[in-house]
Amino acid sequence: MEPAHSPLLTDLYQLTMVDSYLQQGMDAPASFELFSRKLPPGRGFYIASGIEAVVDWLTEMRFGDAELDWIRTCGHFRAGLAEELAQLRFTGHVEAVPDGTILFPQEPILRVTAPLPEAQLIESRVMNLVHLHSLLTSKAARAVLAAGGGSLVDFGMRRAHGAEAAMAAARSTWIAGYAGTATCLAGARYDIPTVGTMAHSYVLAFDREIDAFRAFATAHPRNVVLLIDTYDTADGARKTVQLAREGHPVHGVRIDSGDLGAEARRVRRILDEGGLEQVRILVSGDLDEYAIARLRADAAPIDGFGLGTRMDTAADQPHLDMAYKLQEYRGVARRKRSVGKMHWPGRKQVRRRFVDGVAAGDTLCLAEEELPGAPLLTEVMDGGQRTRSPEGTAAIRERVREGLAALPEACRALEAEPDLYPVEVSTRLRACAEATDRQRH
Amino acid sequence: MEPAHSPLLTDLYQLTMVDSYLQQGMDAPASFELFSRKLPPGRGFYIASGIEAVVDWLTEMRFGDAELDWIRTCGHFRAGLAEELAQLRFTGHVEAVPDGTILFPQEPILRVTAPLPEAQLIESRVMNLVHLHSLLTSKAARAVLAAGGGSLVDFGMRRAHGAEAAMAAARSTWIAGYAGTATCLAGARYDIPTVGTMAHSYVLAFDREIDAFRAFATAHPRNVVLLIDTYDTADGARKTVQLAREGHPVHGVRIDSGDLGAEARRVRRILDEGGLEQVRILVSGDLDEYAIARLRADAAPIDGFGLGTRMDTAADQPHLDMAYKLQEYRGVARRKRSVGKMHWPGRKQVRRRFVDGVAAGDTLCLAEEELPGAPLLTEVMDGGQRTRSPEGTAAIRERVREGLAALPEACRALEAEPDLYPVEVSTRLRACAEATDRQRH
Repeated sequence: MEPAHSPLLTDLYQLTMVDSYLQQGMDAPASFELFSRKLPPGRGFYIASGIEAVVDWLTEMRFGDAELDWIRTCGHFRAGLAEELAQLRFTGHVEAVPDGTILFPQEPILRVTAPLPEAQLIESRVMNLVHLHSLLTSKAARAVLAAGGGSLVDFGMRRAHGAEAAMAAARSTWIAGYAGTATCLAGARYDIPTVGTMAHSYVLAFDREIDAFRAFATAHPRNVVLLIDTYDTADGARKTVQLAREGHPVHGVRIDSGDLGAEARRVRRILDEGGLEQVRILVSGDLDEYAIARLRADAAPIDGFGLGTRMDTAADQPHLDMAYKLQEYRGVARRKRSVGKMHWPGRKQVRRRFVDGVAAGDTLCLAEEELPGAPLLTEVMDGGQRTRSPEGTAAIRERVREGLAALPEACRALEAEPDLYPVEVSTRLRACAEATDRQRH
Repeated sequence: MEPAHSPLLTDLYQLTMVDSYLQQGMDAPASFELFSRKLPPGRGFYIASGIEAVVDWLTEMRFGDAELDWIRTCGHFRAGLAEELAQLRFTGHVEAVPDGTILFPQEPILRVTAPLPEAQLIESRVMNLVHLHSLLTSKAARAVLAAGGGSLVDFGMRRAHGAEAAMAAARSTWIAGYAGTATCLAGARYDIPTVGTMAHSYVLAFDREIDAFRAFATAHPRNVVLLIDTYDTADGARKTVQLAREGHPVHGVRIDSGDLGAEARRVRRILDEGGLEQVRILVSGDLDEYAIARLRADAAPIDGFGLGTRMDTAADQPHLDMAYKLQEYRGVARRKRSVGKMHWPGRKQVRRRFVDGVAAGDTLCLAEEELPGAPLLTEVMDGGQRTRSPEGTAAIRERVREGLAALPEACRALEAEPDLYPVEVSTRLRACAEATDRQRH
């Protein structure tokens, strides 16, 4: 029962509802769509991601013996449910945008069409995966935009919320445009360049700081990036110059504390006076897109940023307002009318129009409507099987890059005005919503 | 290479440093301690947790073939490192506070004493686990305090940051004092009561709301909690009365949108007028400790709270300032002096004194000092093996309950003054720090 793979990683009510649907014979096709209801304040767009992870999970989803034992003994379900779940596989049809697609509120990220119990059962984990990846990719893209070409690396594994979040953070930051990650396993799995320097403990393990620098340069002569703030940053910079004079290679220094802009200026001066104009200065420590923007506005001589905690926890906004809602059952469009939580009913598509390479507006419409613009959702699964090959992170990264470049500039701002990007709702979709609301319940 | 179990879920620099330590023969015993540097604003305490998870991980930690292949081919390390790592097991000694211990800044959560490469290698994942569990347990305890005996349940799996975070959220909220979780796998693994109602999709899947209620009450007569806000909350409450009049059992209703206090009052009136005084009202939707406190101050007739997104992402403060630092190597105490990041050197202990059952103050001291008060850190591993049996969540939950009850009342406030709780530093530890700082580096 490994959490990342177990169908019991779900909310109890999904199983309660499945139990009831099966009992009632309610297994007609249902369409659910996953979408974001609104953007966090100041955000002009978000990036949908995690669909690849969902497809992998759906393909593998099955109840094993340990899971079925729990179903039998937990006391919540009728006898016989475990036997039905033992046979259950995901057999549905899935349309989705590809990972790395820029989206706006109310636009579907993915649509599942499957027998109602299947489509219901998967809700919690589908949301969990897409929410996590989209959250972190969207946050990372902001840092990439703020850095304006400066090099960013992901140092956040230790404070990401667990193993899956750490892996998602490395993948998300890479597809958003970071230069690499410190997380080795993400490097191995997702083909991301791995990067790293040294920790304060390395310096502390030697009696003298210069001995630590010498040992590091000897052990890893191809990538000598020295952490220089363990005792005194200016002193660390002077020892860097000394190390280079001794003939050791030095590629960069990292500053992890203090006023990073002021320290970078001081260190740059010491390095330049020591003839180390080519040695790069990296900074780290509680950085995010806002800190990067401030350091750049201040013209601090910084070549690269190590980002961790605040990015990998999406600290200023660690959740997106996302929902997975029944849109159609037995061929009839549905929507709830709960205050502040309305959505557009029916099976939908998004069509995006471009003018001179810039995204000019989207139309949210019914899936079957033929309207101008490229459709964003395409089939990824049919009959419970993949119909599109898994996509590598390099292609997804390129999609993000192109998507950001095609976004109107005002949408890319760190503090964007609300609802800048035009998303219109088609006439037929509006009519469908009105007809749905006229039904009696 | 399952992320939760792979030693490659680490930062590259750990492996780079290990490579260098092994090359230099630096494998003398090193002591590292994990601690929190400071509390988030307004917090009067935090709760350390995740130590059980760390001990499990350390016991199992080994490099498998796929991991060793990556070590050999990634291009960062000298030839031969993979062969050394293939033999590596954690052989160290660990002292720690038990999960659920209330702690304050600078106090060690755990201390690892092991050959330097081992103690270094484990840093990232040890931090990742303890940070996650401590973060979520500390946040959940605030909601429990705010609810003042009201019933809380965890509905947050879908927006927790991935599978491991969802499991940690269920466990953390339970040990903090919640009544249960919706996350089935956490119920199965951690022996937590599982709870749940129905989703809007269930109501939408029926043509009429009352049919959904009837079907649910028929399928699950022992726990009939109806979600009544899909179309109109007051109307849903009236249908609840109708259902009861038809002879169906009804135990509760859930309201998930709108002004929850006002809706609860309106619904309470309708239920009471319908003779359903005993039917409980549960509310959910973006709730946290502050929202609970407001609803209680407003005397809203609410019997239980379903908490999700804001608690399981620790939304107002999704990270703790935690560090794992080298304290002693080859018998010599160490500390860095980076601005704003100093710590107390040496192998330490915390002793807590109680007066009339109330925690009266802690002393941070050297491990070998005999001072008044109960020592908080005790041995959990020796020679890389557990020396204390795993503890079930019921015992940990009781420790949290007792710990919160023994905390001075001002520390339990939602907006606590800074540094309320007295933590004094022993004379010998101060002397050790001064001696450490006098060393030349």
